[in-house]
Order: sequence, then structure tokens, then C-alpha cells
Amino acid sequence: MQIETPYLIFIGDAKDALAAKTGQGIVDWRPTWSLGQFRFANCRADLNIPDMTVAEAVTAGAKTFVIGTVSPGGTLPESWIPVIISALEGGLDLASGMHTRLSTFPTVVAAAKKHGKKLFDVRHCDVHFSTGAGTARTGNRLLTVGTDCSIGKKYAALAIEQEMRKRGMNADFRATGQTGILIAGGGVAIDAVAADFIAGACEYLSPENSIDHWDIVEGQGSLFHPSFAGVSLGLLHGTQPDAFVVCHEPTRTTMRNVDTPIASVDDVIEQTIALGRLTNPAIRCVGIAVNTAEFDDTQANAYIGDMQGRFELPVTDPMRHGVVSIVNLLTD
Amino acid sequence: MQIETPYLIFIGDAKDALAAKTGQGIVDWRPTWSLGQFRFANCRADLNIPDMTVAEAVTAGAKTFVIGTVSPGGTLPESWIPVIISALEGGLDLASGMHTRLSTFPTVVAAAKKHGKKLFDVRHCDVHFSTGAGTARTGNRLLTVGTDCSIGKKYAALAIEQEMRKRGMNADFRATGQTGILIAGGGVAIDAVAADFIAGACEYLSPENSIDHWDIVEGQGSLFHPSFAGVSLGLLHGTQPDAFVVCHEPTRTTMRNVDTPIASVDDVIEQTIALGRLTNPAIRCVGIAVNTAEFDDTQANAYIGDMQGRFELPVTDPMRHGVVSIVNLLTD
Repeated sequence: MQIETPYLIFIGDAKDALAAKTGQGIVDWRPTWSLGQFRFANCRADLNIPDMTVAEAVTAGAKTFVIGTVSPGGTLPESWIPVIISALEGGLDLASGMHTRLSTFPTVVAAAKKHGKKLFDVRHCDVHFSTGAGTARTGNRLLTVGTDCSIGKKYAALAIEQEMRKRGMNADFRATGQTGILIAGGGVAIDAVAADFIAGACEYLSPENSIDHWDIVEGQGSLFHPSFAGVSLGLLHGTQPDAFVVCHEPTRTTMRNVDTPIASVDDVIEQTIALGRLTNPAIRCVGIAVNTAEFDDTQANAYIGDMQGRFELPVTDPMRHGVVSIVNLLTD
Repeated sequence: MQIETPYLIFIGDAKDALAAKTGQGIVDWRPTWSLGQFRFANCRADLNIPDMTVAEAVTAGAKTFVIGTVSPGGTLPESWIPVIISALEGGLDLASGMHTRLSTFPTVVAAAKKHGKKLFDVRHCDVHFSTGAGTARTGNRLLTVGTDCSIGKKYAALAIEQEMRKRGMNADFRATGQTGILIAGGGVAIDAVAADFIAGACEYLSPENSIDHWDIVEGQGSLFHPSFAGVSLGLLHGTQPDAFVVCHEPTRTTMRNVDTPIASVDDVIEQTIALGRLTNPAIRCVGIAVNTAEFDDTQANAYIGDMQGRFELPVTDPMRHGVVSIVNLLTD
């Protein structure tokens, strides 16, 4: 799956900024791919990039029409279909992170076929994976792990890729979820892979590479989340990371959508090393990424200072302070 | 998925006993469901139950024609199709553990429709699972875990169910793989469930129950197998077992299909408790099931005696010595 760039980002009738989070993620991390946004008159979100028609975007060089907002019930509302078809007619491929496959909408399929355009369902992957082999491979890999789901693993990974590339390092963000895939232009939505192939799909996603290369792999779930720990463990074994960063949000008390108390950073470090050793005996923790969005500057600095005292590791909020200290540790 | 019993077991042209392993498993554990076998003239396997035609089996009360042998490439050979269609015509449902869905064979689908018969693809499950909740539920659960894949977890679980039922206990074997499902008449092939729903599917499979009830859940993979540990962890969290039995085969040095050394029983006990505590803080090991098929009686007894000295737990080969000691520990 390789989605052609740049994009025209569709945010339709998004009712607020949160509903356009996918589009915002693309703009934040791939500004040069984000040519323009397509909005309806009643849209309450704004990605702060030019509003464009399909024709304007095609003239400007756009290749793919990306659905950058949530769709009610994971399916296409009737009101979106004419716009989507006009995008295919205009010459754009179509990429969607919806649960429902684009192939289930006959008019969309017909338009894509007629105009020779591709449909990308980033949540689904039709690759026939092998089961994981567990054998060592060359190249370096870093995985972001978490004390919970939805805690900043994707953004931490993207920040590390950005910092490495800024230094001229050979690094690639590897996406494992639908928003990450739209940001990367490719990847595998690990949560949708059949259970037997989780580790194998991660080996496929972060293959053998040159000795100076870093794959920065987007983590999923948490080893301590009762719904998703199996996904997290398969990802850990398949990625066989040399390094990992623990992502944490200090104000949460229970994990997302369950009653389980949030895991401690200490436990996540210990367990990730204990289990990760199976496929990479040299695995080590290289930092803690704290999501301090709920704190003001004073609170954030105090919390991070305290964590730095407790752990002999770089501790930072990637969004507030960047990840220089983490990348420094990797290049020492 | 609830498959009607009893069965006519098809082993076709199985080239040896191993090729008819699924059929043999059904005969071993559900003799009263195993009315007869259907074999071609060149079949080299024998389940030691009466050979029957479809008409004879229907007269004897059979409800389902079960494919009890491996199919080359996971699909239906041309030579099997007339027999399968005659079974549907004769009044039997059809159950298969093949990779390829029965729904992809138009003549089979047409015959099932015409005669009002059901097709069961036990490797696939069309239930829409929820993600795991991780909340405690009533009833008791025992999970068989392993130092490797394919090491005796299904047979150990079935032996425990059998011993419990013999004592009048309220116990159900819960199948998580295709052969187990044919033996149980229902279940979920966990390895084919989308990664996000492993734990949720296990919660569905072993639901809340009366306080005297035991679910005996068939384990999959191993927490130490680099291909499948994610499946094993999701199963552990979703099952939230009160008790587990470690299955081990003493002559193996590496795990199935990979170069990873086989895990130790000690490590499996420690790790299963450490990780299982997340959804059941009271989890405990209640026995070690040793697969001594490669040993003679003297070797088997010596090995088991040695293990019993090292672990303060029941140690037994379920096939050679039964599981009385394990069930005794649960009823103390």
C-alpha cells in the first residue's frame, strides 16, 4: 500500500476540531503533502491550509483525496458521495480510514474503475502475511510503547523521525494505525490483522535494512491494557526493537474504556524489557515521552523534572519540548 | 456456531493416520458423536468406527458430515465434491476446518441452499466481537498454556473436562482452534480473529457462569513463541483464568517452525502469573501436563518423578496417567 502524495484533505462537515483530527495530524506532520482542504459550508473545523476545489487541487499537483474526518458510524454519509465521485472524476485517488470498505459502495467503485483511479482502505490490508519468524535482522528499530492506549505513541514516533531527519539520519516512521498510515503514505493497520499474523505483519512493516537505518514504529495499545495487550505484545516481538520510548499521560487514573488502573512507567519499562528480550536481547528503554497537554508550563516542568530525578533517562513532552534528548542518547 | 451431532466423519483418501488426526480427535473425545466414518477405497487411515454411507448414517441419526482429514492446500479437491454434495442431499449439515471457506464453492453452496442444510466453516467466525472489558465475572475458568505450540494443550483440556464430568462436576471444554471446535460442536478459532478482538472473543467464549461451573479453555501458542505470543496473551487476559496448567514436551529443543529455544516450565509459570494477574489477581498454576509420547514407561515415570520433586504441583501425562491429581487440587 503506497498512497500517492500530495493530498487534498476532505474534512466535510466536521462539527469541531476533534472531528478533523486525522486531517490535522496530516497537516502537522506532512505540511508539504497537505496542499489544501475541502470543506462544506457548515464545517466547524479549519486545518489552516488553503480551501480548494478538486480542480484547483489537481492543477496544484494533488494526487489523492484523503478523508480526514470521522464518518458517522464508520460509513459514507450520502452527502459525501457526490464530492468523492467528483474527486475520482477529477483525477484523484481516494484514501479512507473508515471501518466500512470503499469497495462496498458501488457508485464509488464504478467511478474509480471508469477513471482508472485507486481506492485505499487504510484500515484494511490485503497482504498475505507470514507468521513471525523471530530471527534477528539488520537495521535499527525503535518502538513507542505506552501506559495506556491513545496516549501519544504516534506523535512521539513522528517527533523522533522528524528530529532524526533534521540531523540527516536515515529514519522512517512506520505506521500501524489508520491515521499514521495517511501520514506516512503507507503502513499496516495492525489491529485489523488476523491474530496469528500480528508479529509477522510487524516483521513485514519493519524489514531488514542498512546498518545506519532507523525504523521508528508507532506502537499500539499497552502491555497492561486488558483489551489490547495481545496486539502490543505481537508488535513488540515482531518489531524486535533495539530501543523503546514509554509514552505516559500523568492525569489519567484508569485505562481507556475499561476500569483497569493505568499502568506505571516503571512497570511498563520492566515488562517491555522482560518480554522484548525474546526477539531482541539488547532491547533498552531510551526515554519517557510525557503527554502534558493537561498541564500548564509550570506543572509540566515540575512533573518532568520529578520524573528525570526518578529515572536515569531522557524525559520530555515531544509536543512541548521536542525529543532532542532522546535522539542524543541514540547517537551517543 | 453450534454444530448438530452426531457426526458422519469423512476421512476420504487420507494417506496415513496423521492425515486423519482431526477425525481421530473427535473419535477419541466424543465417541458417542462419532457414528461412522466415510472413506474412499484408497484410504490408509482407519478411525476404528463403522464405515457408513450417507444413507446409513442418516438412518442411524447422523446430523452433520464433518471433514476429518487435511485437505491439500486447505481447499476442496475435485474428488471430494460429489461426496460432499451427496451428504447435503442426503440431509446432513457440513462442517469443515479448511482455510478456504465452503461459501467459495458454488456447487456446495447451491446444494446446501436447495436442501436447507447448514455450512460450518469452523476456522472462521462471523460474530461481531466487542473489545475485551477485563472486568471480573462469576464462574471458574482453567486455561491450558504451553512451553510451545502443538504440545498437548487441547488434549490436556479435554482430559480435565472428562475427569470433571466423571465426578459430576459442571464443566465445559471451550475450543479455540478448528479441531477443538469440531470436538466441542462449537467455539471460536482465535487465531483468525482480528487482533483488536482477541481478548473480547475469549470473554465471549467463556462468559459469566454459575459459581460451581468450570470452563476448561483450550490454549493456543505460547507466551514465549515469537510468532504467536500476542494470541496467547490475549487469550490469557480474555479468559481471566483462576487456574492454569502448563503443557510441556521434554524432548523438544526449539519451538515449532522457529529457531527460538523452547521455554522452560519455570519461566512459563512465572510469566503466566505475572501477566495473568491483570485480569485475575488470584491466578495460580494447578499442574504440569507432560507429553511423554516420545518416552517409554520407564523414561516417562522418571521424568515425571523428577518434575514432581522440583515443583510442588501435580505433574502428569494426561494421555498416559490421566489428570486425577490436577482435578483433586481444584476440588480440595
